[in-house]
Amino acid sequence: MQRFNWSQLDSAGQLTALARPALADSADLAANVKAIIAKVRAEGDAALQQFSQQFDGLSDNPLRLSEAEQQRLLGLLQPERKAAIELAYDNIRKFHAAQLPRDIEVETSAGVICQLKSRPIGSVGLYIPGGSAPLPSTVLMLGVPAQLAGCPRTVLVTPPGKPAAIDIAPEIIYAANLCGISEIYTIGGAQAIAALAYGTASIAKVDKIFGPGNRYVTEAKQQVSQDAKGAQIDMPAGPSEVLVLADAEANPAFVAADLLSQALVSDSSTLLDNVEIQLAAQLAALPRKEIAAQALAHSRAILTADLATAVAVTNAYAPEHLIVQTRDASALTEQFDSAASIFVGAWTPESAGDYASGTNHVLPTYGYSRTVSSLSLTDFYRRFTVQQLSAQGMRNIGPAIVTLAEAESLEAHANAVRLRLAALEKAGQNTAND
Amino acid sequence: MQRFNWSQLDSAGQLTALARPALADSADLAANVKAIIAKVRAEGDAALQQFSQQFDGLSDNPLRLSEAEQQRLLGLLQPERKAAIELAYDNIRKFHAAQLPRDIEVETSAGVICQLKSRPIGSVGLYIPGGSAPLPSTVLMLGVPAQLAGCPRTVLVTPPGKPAAIDIAPEIIYAANLCGISEIYTIGGAQAIAALAYGTASIAKVDKIFGPGNRYVTEAKQQVSQDAKGAQIDMPAGPSEVLVLADAEANPAFVAADLLSQALVSDSSTLLDNVEIQLAAQLAALPRKEIAAQALAHSRAILTADLATAVAVTNAYAPEHLIVQTRDASALTEQFDSAASIFVGAWTPESAGDYASGTNHVLPTYGYSRTVSSLSLTDFYRRFTVQQLSAQGMRNIGPAIVTLAEAESLEAHANAVRLRLAALEKAGQNTAND
Repeated sequence: MQRFNWSQLDSAGQLTALARPALADSADLAANVKAIIAKVRAEGDAALQQFSQQFDGLSDNPLRLSEAEQQRLLGLLQPERKAAIELAYDNIRKFHAAQLPRDIEVETSAGVICQLKSRPIGSVGLYIPGGSAPLPSTVLMLGVPAQLAGCPRTVLVTPPGKPAAIDIAPEIIYAANLCGISEIYTIGGAQAIAALAYGTASIAKVDKIFGPGNRYVTEAKQQVSQDAKGAQIDMPAGPSEVLVLADAEANPAFVAADLLSQALVSDSSTLLDNVEIQLAAQLAALPRKEIAAQALAHSRAILTADLATAVAVTNAYAPEHLIVQTRDASALTEQFDSAASIFVGAWTPESAGDYASGTNHVLPTYGYSRTVSSLSLTDFYRRFTVQQLSAQGMRNIGPAIVTLAEAESLEAHANAVRLRLAALEKAGQNTAND
Repeated sequence: MQRFNWSQLDSAGQLTALARPALADSADLAANVKAIIAKVRAEGDAALQQFSQQFDGLSDNPLRLSEAEQQRLLGLLQPERKAAIELAYDNIRKFHAAQLPRDIEVETSAGVICQLKSRPIGSVGLYIPGGSAPLPSTVLMLGVPAQLAGCPRTVLVTPPGKPAAIDIAPEIIYAANLCGISEIYTIGGAQAIAALAYGTASIAKVDKIFGPGNRYVTEAKQQVSQDAKGAQIDMPAGPSEVLVLADAEANPAFVAADLLSQALVSDSSTLLDNVEIQLAAQLAALPRKEIAAQALAHSRAILTADLATAVAVTNAYAPEHLIVQTRDASALTEQFDSAASIFVGAWTPESAGDYASGTNHVLPTYGYSRTVSSLSLTDFYRRFTVQQLSAQGMRNIGPAIVTLAEAESLEAHANAVRLRLAALEKAGQNTAND
């Protein structure tokens, strides 16, 4: 763990202390992904089969996971895991249900009614990474809001599981089914994103794609979102990150456990020392300790002169996850202006929000949380406006519209109103047209 | 105006009838814009001066429009235009004020508090195109929500106005001042977007950029939004578009006036005939009739067998503006699932929403309205989550978190909870830690 003493750093040194690892140069990656997308657009399912052979070692990927196979897999689910998924589902559902949008209607001038309406996006695709382990929690984080919004079609794609075999975890199926999702495809990577964005014979196109993934998936999402014929995406994605802000009263063991990730900011050097001791002890006990040790080598501890500076440093970093373990953690929360998700007090580790508190774990990283919002129910809706003027409404605001359209030299716009005002004048003030 | 008879088209013909004009190939454009951005990043104000000389013919652009100059310009404002701007401001403000977000707090399990909070984005930049005419309406559409959200810093940039002179319209200044904006820069084009995204000595960086612009501006917004060090943007932009859906009872003169733009869908061939006659008459009377005639040559009329098909065609096109002039226009509104803004009935031309009804005129185009929302107050906020578990909350959901983290092979996540559960057990069930 690298240590920095904030008050002894010049501004360049402070920037270094807060720098994120540079993202790998991606010219090659972009070209590879572009080629994969082009092939899927041109050849459809045949391209998916070829990529599945190449990347998954599968000679014939059925693509769609049949109902019978889903039922078979569900039979393998351990009861304890089933119950844990249900608890998480309930909490995530409660929190997201509280976000249901209300339609708005305002009469801005007499006879001028304006509405803002929210309607679910027609079809959404959820990408669930495979990799080293299945991620049922991500199924819930994406599937619950899609279900609550009432998106007419929700599709899930995920890599086939094991090399040369279709092996989807029962936890994935169960979480999907709880969210009302039965359309599941065993395909991953950039080719899955291309299939979702453009459609193939087997997989119908979706309007918007959600979910995390590796560099190929992230790049493919970026590319299809730049094309009007492609699909929208949830948010820019990057590696997960956490910052712990702790004072002298924090429990070093808790801080160390939360920290097996990234950054610690504190106004107490004693706390930093004690956390280092705990880190060494906890690291030794982890099964995949090499990976954790590697991550820790890139992590840093920043000592500040006081808590106010610690808050300022935290805001400057704009972490994805912010864990606050200080005396008045709750009171401090109002001072954070850039974290994507905040975990308050000793009993709130990051894993609470990652799994089961109810908040969403799909969050902006890499400083994007300054402007990009945490995933919420609203991301599964489109908002649009409706307006209706009565004849009286036209009389009330029509002259102002003509004036403004003339000021902007937009004659056709002015004319569309003049014509109506003339028709109203002709019909007389006491027309039945109101 | 091209005419199509929907029921006689095969599916390829239907696609052609709904096709948007292809966007010009943009490899050159992208390279030019990239070079402009790189130069502004490297040379700052010096680059802005050089581009202002090159594109605006200005030998020394003061960049910041002084308070004294703003006051001088305000003195030139015509009282009628001042009043029209005030009416529009009031209506836009009323409609957007109704959208103020509420923070949400839910206790998802006993002792598990989850919150969703909205806070204004720290600094926003509004791009107001110059071109042939000033656009005070766009200042209001962007400035009012920024003001209501309470963004701590709102900046406006706009091209200098006339060739070789700084000449900002008084309407722009007045609209900006109503919205509480006094930080105004006389710079436009891709260089203005670069300055907003990365900052120069004169123009401090902003977090998010809003507003329409020409191809250079649009491309520059796209490019800076792809860079984590750049800035977020409001939405993808394209040329404005309008679709009119009208039945036999619509007023052909009104339809023609609204139509001096793009597409008409109707189940009545008589209406189409009558609109053509009106179009010819109205076109002859317009001052910039060559431009309008050109636009009209690209416009199309689609005849459908019935109103239900007309609605389906409209939904397939996903227009930015949809004007509905049919018998039961209000009732029909619920059937549209993809328009960005809907104008209902004979007295509601597009210009109502463009200027003064209160709705926002910054809208997704080119079919993006299927998934991208109309600009609304929420775009000026960031949403983030906060969670806090009591000791009891940890006891209630901790075991489920451990189970899920184990299912996902994420030991460090499981460990952060196990450690806390062990501490609680040690402290006893009746601890004061709750």
